[in-house]
Amino acid sequence: MTTKKNQKSLLIVYTGNGKGKTTAAMGMAFRALGRKWKVAVMQFIKGKWTTGERKLGEKTPGLSWHVMGLGFTWESKDLAKDKEAAQQAWETSVELINSGNQNIVILDEITYAINYEFICLKDVINTLQQRPESVHVVITGRNAPQEIIDMADLVTEMKPIKHPYEQGIPAQMGIDF
Amino acid sequence: MTTKKNQKSLLIVYTGNGKGKTTAAMGMAFRALGRKWKVAVMQFIKGKWTTGERKLGEKTPGLSWHVMGLGFTWESKDLAKDKEAAQQAWETSVELINSGNQNIVILDEITYAINYEFICLKDVINTLQQRPESVHVVITGRNAPQEIIDMADLVTEMKPIKHPYEQGIPAQMGIDF
Repeated sequence: MTTKKNQKSLLIVYTGNGKGKTTAAMGMAFRALGRKWKVAVMQFIKGKWTTGERKLGEKTPGLSWHVMGLGFTWESKDLAKDKEAAQQAWETSVELINSGNQNIVILDEITYAINYEFICLKDVINTLQQRPESVHVVITGRNAPQEIIDMADLVTEMKPIKHPYEQGIPAQMGIDF
Repeated sequence: MTTKKNQKSLLIVYTGNGKGKTTAAMGMAFRALGRKWKVAVMQFIKGKWTTGERKLGEKTPGLSWHVMGLGFTWESKDLAKDKEAAQQAWETSVELINSGNQNIVILDEITYAINYEFICLKDVINTLQQRPESVHVVITGRNAPQEIIDMADLVTEMKPIKHPYEQGIPAQMGIDF
């Protein structure tokens, strides 16, 4: 059993209301790239993400960077269009996972797409369960569904103790995005 | 006041017993480098850290990577030597902060050096309080002292919900280090 477990790829979940979820996922990418691993990132929330990590991510060898939908912001009034963008992002995610070419696939903020029912939780679970043995998957976002927590190997809840917004300090380039 | 706050550099603390603290700090470095910021990392625990992040960190432009003490492991029986290594690492950290040349200084796992009283909490607090306005500081490690939490702008507790070690899955290269 220990031998098998040794080889096991992990399902890692960073959830909770505190800051650091996407950031920790980016740190995992950084660490893995240092090992010459291949890492894919799918960002399920775009509006925010003309970001520092994206600027670096798009030009970093070994890192395959994907952003959901062109111009998608989650502020659209067109729910059908939003759902379509989320589903396309999910299809790309499935390809990235199933190809077996990536050591880590990061599904950044996918929980929102699941919780808004833009993509089907059951599909996500099936894909995760049937993924190639070598592919680690990282999921970030608030309110990770219990079914995903149940099947995960590592779950950390980022719990906000103190948040700069509370003190009137707005999000800053370089720090928050 | 809002204007002043807008400009404020942050003291950010990632603490708690869950995984993701150092990882989130590395993610902050990654994001900031994407903005062409200068980032310094001082790692206060060395043994673990012939790591993926260090391999990449040491060759990444804009990133200044420092590791406490040569061969320091926290497993030494020579406490005086340990303390000296920690104090040297702290002195370098003070120089990195006070130079004003770094946008972010990451003091990785410094809480252990403080809690073991290898470095003086009061010195750390003074340095943080008097730091150049432009320098963001990130502190990671379990059991961050309350005095540091009190003065921090952002504190996230990484709370372990599920940990792979509990399931007999050992730390893996590329994922954990």
